[in-house]
Amino acid sequence: MNIGIISIGDEILSGFTVNTNASWIGKELTNIGFSINNQITTRDNHNSILNALNNLSKKEINYIIITGGLGSTDDDITREALFEFVSAKEIFDKSYWEFLKKRNNKFDLKTPKIIQKQALIPDKGKIIENPYGSARGFQFNIKYSTIFSLPGVPYEMKKMMENSIIPYLKNKLKKPKITKIIKTYGISESRVSEKIKLIISNFLSCSIGYYPSPYGVDIRVSGYNLKDIDKLIIILKNNLKKYIFSLKNESLEKTVLKLAIKKNRTISIAESCTGGLISNRITNVSGSSKILRGAIVCYSNESKIKLLGINESILHKYGAVSNKIAFLMASNALKIFSSDYALSVTGISGPTGGSKSKPVGLVYIALSNFKETKVEKFHFHSNREINKIKTSQAALNLLRMALLNE
Amino acid sequence: MNIGIISIGDEILSGFTVNTNASWIGKELTNIGFSINNQITTRDNHNSILNALNNLSKKEINYIIITGGLGSTDDDITREALFEFVSAKEIFDKSYWEFLKKRNNKFDLKTPKIIQKQALIPDKGKIIENPYGSARGFQFNIKYSTIFSLPGVPYEMKKMMENSIIPYLKNKLKKPKITKIIKTYGISESRVSEKIKLIISNFLSCSIGYYPSPYGVDIRVSGYNLKDIDKLIIILKNNLKKYIFSLKNESLEKTVLKLAIKKNRTISIAESCTGGLISNRITNVSGSSKILRGAIVCYSNESKIKLLGINESILHKYGAVSNKIAFLMASNALKIFSSDYALSVTGISGPTGGSKSKPVGLVYIALSNFKETKVEKFHFHSNREINKIKTSQAALNLLRMALLNE
Repeated sequence: MNIGIISIGDEILSGFTVNTNASWIGKELTNIGFSINNQITTRDNHNSILNALNNLSKKEINYIIITGGLGSTDDDITREALFEFVSAKEIFDKSYWEFLKKRNNKFDLKTPKIIQKQALIPDKGKIIENPYGSARGFQFNIKYSTIFSLPGVPYEMKKMMENSIIPYLKNKLKKPKITKIIKTYGISESRVSEKIKLIISNFLSCSIGYYPSPYGVDIRVSGYNLKDIDKLIIILKNNLKKYIFSLKNESLEKTVLKLAIKKNRTISIAESCTGGLISNRITNVSGSSKILRGAIVCYSNESKIKLLGINESILHKYGAVSNKIAFLMASNALKIFSSDYALSVTGISGPTGGSKSKPVGLVYIALSNFKETKVEKFHFHSNREINKIKTSQAALNLLRMALLNE
Repeated sequence: MNIGIISIGDEILSGFTVNTNASWIGKELTNIGFSINNQITTRDNHNSILNALNNLSKKEINYIIITGGLGSTDDDITREALFEFVSAKEIFDKSYWEFLKKRNNKFDLKTPKIIQKQALIPDKGKIIENPYGSARGFQFNIKYSTIFSLPGVPYEMKKMMENSIIPYLKNKLKKPKITKIIKTYGISESRVSEKIKLIISNFLSCSIGYYPSPYGVDIRVSGYNLKDIDKLIIILKNNLKKYIFSLKNESLEKTVLKLAIKKNRTISIAESCTGGLISNRITNVSGSSKILRGAIVCYSNESKIKLLGINESILHKYGAVSNKIAFLMASNALKIFSSDYALSVTGISGPTGGSKSKPVGLVYIALSNFKETKVEKFHFHSNREINKIKTSQAALNLLRMALLNE
């Protein structure tokens, strides 16, 4: 079954808001077996909205999802245009208006009159409740399709999709499509595809997609036969082994955190060129305080000497970006934080600071535990921010491998 | 003049790629005075592409920009559909094919036969050179509009826009629009608009937009009269004073870094609840090694005691999230790193860890220099990641204010 999406708002067209609503809806509905046919972004303008609705009102589109323009300011005109399109009359929902006033009173807020717009409902169709905001959504049946209209505020829209529309749409599918995501690191898209080409050819009921990014390659396996998908995933798992870090669509930092908690291990970090990114990524995961003892961002030579206890003459002899210093950063951090593992990175993120012998993108990553300290050398070829991301990913993966191989 | 954008690709509709190309083009062209009328995302499908082209080929749209589908794999079919739409015949550009082969030889790479597709050119229209890739673009005139077709790889598309299309379009404008951005922190959208309502009403030649985010409110001033815009910006500057952190569309971390370099000041950071985010943001700016001495992510009590030298009994008496501990974290970091300023944050990012007296979102931020240590209390109400962002923004702003007031 096919979906059309209409995104409404001048701020999207003028590039001030990136249209993450459309991609979120696209992903959620593709994963359960719908096909997104078309997505139109249109201005906050009556005729433009009607044009978009006319464009998508055709046989091959079963559901139209509209986001945006349901607020209470002057440029919120989706309701008017939509009611005209489906020939609905406006009714003032007095009880909802009383509810909104009461709710605002609780917060000691006056309810501006302009909010009355949000109590206007149609004389046909259905209301979709908004648990997080005052702009409710609408649902109408037209000749070929069902139209859903939702507010554009991402967390309100998502909650309404999750509570009302996704369950409704799932019910309409004879057999929902199943999509599972395999997250890999350390192998390129072309190598993955080469490695598993033959295997996939035996699973005609499953389709495969590859999605490369600086974080690795995601493999998306989908189809209507859960048994086949699970069988294929087991075979892929055996073939891609250590390259796979998650079968649950979880980030590498979350995977590492869960592994460390499971193995009851604490970690600490000494970061130079990543400047706090590794620590920041780990602490984005709730529960990270259980395993992260702390991190030192040793961005200056003095901090390497003073905080990490690295000998000044050794630092000058080998240079901050070297195998030796990475080794010492990790092994000293291990002692300082009394953690089970210590990770260290030192390198040149760019764009400046490179030389012939130590070019931009050169990175040493070390991992230390009570037994040993291992150093690996990397060379990345992107810009400063992407080099930092790639370095953090390589470091987290080293830690993952060590935890797995304990 | 009006623009229509067509984005081609199943991966955009299915949400695996967020359509940042459309927002980038929208922003660049809006800033110079074009109006984006419509944006359509369509599948890698011949008829869908033709439909989108038909939809946008109307009097009110002067330029159509297509991105995506010019590569050499089977699902890249934009060229075929577009040539059909403008009734162009395919010609094989032998010299371009020789050029591609020669270039690949340089890298010791074989040129796959499939790449021959990229040497196919039309018997009308123009070729748009691609300095970063092998897929060239096309330009055609049709009844009402001019069509540009570009590859979907972001940095190739952007370079071709910057080199060829933006200069071409600028030339078509009688008078290009000027847009300047004022970045503010610490004032809400409604308060800004209230504060400057009267001022703006005297500048009818300028239009104003507000763009709130967790980083603050951006004010976008645009118009065709540079003198008026500059005059208005000076008045706004005098009215919003310290709320403005950049008139050059620069991030707060870049603003702080430039200020610190200008005043020849070094900084250090002790981060608890932000977990490395502040340090990570500062080190995203090239040149930050000049001013950042280092940071300690003291995520555990032990690290606060051991690395920051905080007395254990004081830590237990006041609790890690307290005015007192924020004070000590900053004043001790100042000494440890021998920096001119030390920033500290301690708080509860959530979703767990809150209590009645210390709820999720409670944050203390301290700033220390040789004269004094000041602590401020904040309460944020978002999720974990947004609370971290808001905390880092508040901390960087404290540092900015101190540097300004020296």
